[in-house]
Amino acid sequence: MLLCDIGNTRMHFYSGNEILHFTHNEGLEHFKNEKVYFISVNQEITNKIKKLSLKWIEVKDENFLKTSYKGLGIDRIAACLGIENGVVIDAGSAITVDVVEDGKHLGGWIWPGIKAQLKCYTNISERLTVSLNSLVDVSKLPQNTTEAVSFGIFAPIACLVKTFAQNRKVVLTGGDAKILSSLFPDAEVDEEIVFKGMKKMIKESGC
Amino acid sequence: MLLCDIGNTRMHFYSGNEILHFTHNEGLEHFKNEKVYFISVNQEITNKIKKLSLKWIEVKDENFLKTSYKGLGIDRIAACLGIENGVVIDAGSAITVDVVEDGKHLGGWIWPGIKAQLKCYTNISERLTVSLNSLVDVSKLPQNTTEAVSFGIFAPIACLVKTFAQNRKVVLTGGDAKILSSLFPDAEVDEEIVFKGMKKMIKESGC
Repeated sequence: MLLCDIGNTRMHFYSGNEILHFTHNEGLEHFKNEKVYFISVNQEITNKIKKLSLKWIEVKDENFLKTSYKGLGIDRIAACLGIENGVVIDAGSAITVDVVEDGKHLGGWIWPGIKAQLKCYTNISERLTVSLNSLVDVSKLPQNTTEAVSFGIFAPIACLVKTFAQNRKVVLTGGDAKILSSLFPDAEVDEEIVFKGMKKMIKESGC
Repeated sequence: MLLCDIGNTRMHFYSGNEILHFTHNEGLEHFKNEKVYFISVNQEITNKIKKLSLKWIEVKDENFLKTSYKGLGIDRIAACLGIENGVVIDAGSAITVDVVEDGKHLGGWIWPGIKAQLKCYTNISERLTVSLNSLVDVSKLPQNTTEAVSFGIFAPIACLVKTFAQNRKVVLTGGDAKILSSLFPDAEVDEEIVFKGMKKMIKESGC
């Protein structure tokens, strides 16, 4: 069974072994003749898939996830279905953080992704263009611009996830998961969590 | 004495009463015949002032501020000189946070300003274009996109400033100072703090 998670900027495919990453156009071209189960947060690409009459099947939200959150992205729903208890940090174009307790989603928030944040600093001033230091000590006050920008990006993640995780396990996924793993020594990096959730959705919906 | 703080996107003038805000070109035109003491983080505008042979006098860093920080912006130096003890949050095009203890700068960090952060969310996805809620409860997990984005912007400020402020007073300045004041009920909003520091620098340097 070929699964696909369509994000804002890329497509991620999973067949049970490795995860393959493509641009939208590359992914559509590469798997145009396959049967693909997909979730999408990108309406433009979803429309394109429908227009192309591919054998792709959209896996939609059927209220599988218990939550009070209005408008939770389907990728976040899938990621939350992938765990029973814990905090999921999905670090891609955006960084989403979601808290799950006994299978119930308690809420979560959104940050721009690391690449987008760095661009945001550069847009303000060329002086803020730095080589990111993911090993910056977020418990100490920065002493130069590289530290100040790196701290600005990483310290909020450390501070807020620790506040809301309490004693729950932290699961990291998405393209920047490994960069963030130094902030959470006990965290698990699980690149398949969204696909685990998708499988549950497919099984329960019978689609 | 007319003082001017030249930022990345605007100029801020102070004559002892109110603070006037101008674009760079407007400010240069409006005060071209005046004697203006200025600090600048914008080298392009500094060069332009020199080229125009105005009666403007640059107030430079003369190591007035005790700090181990390398490359601290002159506006942050001035703001830190404006207090003896406390945390200064200067919320403009960028948000800078600096900690001062007994007149010594202990370090600090940088975030993109609120407007830049909002644009950053919009660039990722139109779905992340929201009306910012500065009164979002940063102690609770967000339950919709507006809360998730507002929390993403404000919760880091609350979480990290509280961590590093400890029992120091918090002083807010810059164009978005009032927006941030709901995060810190005991904070002081002081739009003149940079100019207070500038006056000290002018007095001590005798320029």
